[in-house]
Amino acid sequence: MRVRLIISYDGTNYCGYQIQKNASSIQKCVEDAIFIVYNVVVKSLGASRTDSGVHAICQNVVFDIEESKIPIEKLYQILNRYLPKDIRVIKSMLVDNNFHPRYDSIKKTYNYTIYNGEHMPPFYNNYMMNVKKKLNVLHMREASKYFLGTHDFIGFSNAGSDVRTTVRTIFEFDIIEEGNIIQFHITGDGFLYNMVRIIIGTLIRVGMGKISVEDIPNIIESRDRSRAGKTAKPNGLVLQRIYYGVKYE
Amino acid sequence: MRVRLIISYDGTNYCGYQIQKNASSIQKCVEDAIFIVYNVVVKSLGASRTDSGVHAICQNVVFDIEESKIPIEKLYQILNRYLPKDIRVIKSMLVDNNFHPRYDSIKKTYNYTIYNGEHMPPFYNNYMMNVKKKLNVLHMREASKYFLGTHDFIGFSNAGSDVRTTVRTIFEFDIIEEGNIIQFHITGDGFLYNMVRIIIGTLIRVGMGKISVEDIPNIIESRDRSRAGKTAKPNGLVLQRIYYGVKYE
Repeated sequence: MRVRLIISYDGTNYCGYQIQKNASSIQKCVEDAIFIVYNVVVKSLGASRTDSGVHAICQNVVFDIEESKIPIEKLYQILNRYLPKDIRVIKSMLVDNNFHPRYDSIKKTYNYTIYNGEHMPPFYNNYMMNVKKKLNVLHMREASKYFLGTHDFIGFSNAGSDVRTTVRTIFEFDIIEEGNIIQFHITGDGFLYNMVRIIIGTLIRVGMGKISVEDIPNIIESRDRSRAGKTAKPNGLVLQRIYYGVKYE
Repeated sequence: MRVRLIISYDGTNYCGYQIQKNASSIQKCVEDAIFIVYNVVVKSLGASRTDSGVHAICQNVVFDIEESKIPIEKLYQILNRYLPKDIRVIKSMLVDNNFHPRYDSIKKTYNYTIYNGEHMPPFYNNYMMNVKKKLNVLHMREASKYFLGTHDFIGFSNAGSDVRTTVRTIFEFDIIEEGNIIQFHITGDGFLYNMVRIIIGTLIRVGMGKISVEDIPNIIESRDRSRAGKTAKPNGLVLQRIYYGVKYE
């Protein structure tokens, strides 16, 4: 049987979601907890390979086991006993054997947060990117609209994607400013490696006046990584939500 | 000459603001940085002795030195080089020799944050108190109004205050609910040891229906610590602002 977990974590102290040699990953912690509970080694599948420092509200993970004496809907509580405090399973359930958390997802939402001011309170260090110079948020918002729709985003990805196509569709992109804090909410059918962070890095350059709003369509069309902005820091990024079909909501 | 520093910090990894033996305090870090810069041992004075886990946006600290080759208004940048990333000096300035950050303050504002829901994202662990059971925020807000004005708050303090009077005046007390997050903003002329956290702990009991709104005036008047709620966790608390007279704003 296939078990689906919904997991929330603080990525600060991890090398990222995915297992790496000689580094502490979220996936390893989760598989270790599963091992403690069932005494079997499992290979889990995650929906999104978040990088080191990136956080998640709702990572989706599945693994297969032969049987469980623990009712699966209570499993999350047991797993939490064996997980560090910065990783929490918030739900556990049985799913179809062919459910795949990555391929079956139809949309994902990421949030990104910038602290735009000279003196970011240090308790935001791990959760926001600090841009000291005042950004023009109106320009950033105008520019963000050009990312909506279907484009080849190859110029907005770093090496490391292993994908059949670099075409993606962005459904929603909202920017909310509240005091010194700028929040970006971006929803798409999928994202290439570092795509959200490169889009944010590009919008930062727009906000600084170093890229004009009107240039954005050309930069997207150019499919040239060097014309986009730098990859924004990981700590501002949160995997907010993964949407599946009605069947797996 | 007397130097005033405005300091912002994440209290998670410290024993609190004040120097303690065999523990890492904010004050010690600041005095160590001053020692590196001036090669003199100073005894600094802070406005508020925040507890372990409590954060600050604007702690006020003063110390005296004979002379400074560094322009004092630039000192904050130099100190930041020798401070850990979770402590930031955001301003440095000269003040009158008789300025006292604690006794000259006329008001202080603290914020407290509760995550009211079963599954608090782990990246809030150090910054919010998690109350899983749904709280009645309307009742909490009604109850909060009874704290406004001048009262003897001795029943809302833990042993450790060293004060002449336990009478304090609360000027403002606002509660803002947004999704699962409840924020409390409380402004008073001063606060006894753990007073904010005990008031919050009491309001939590109101929100849970364990203390009725109408009972709050009696509990205040009783001056009986045992009738108030538990001291709420430190990690939800932030020293938000300290007000001085016009002269020291």
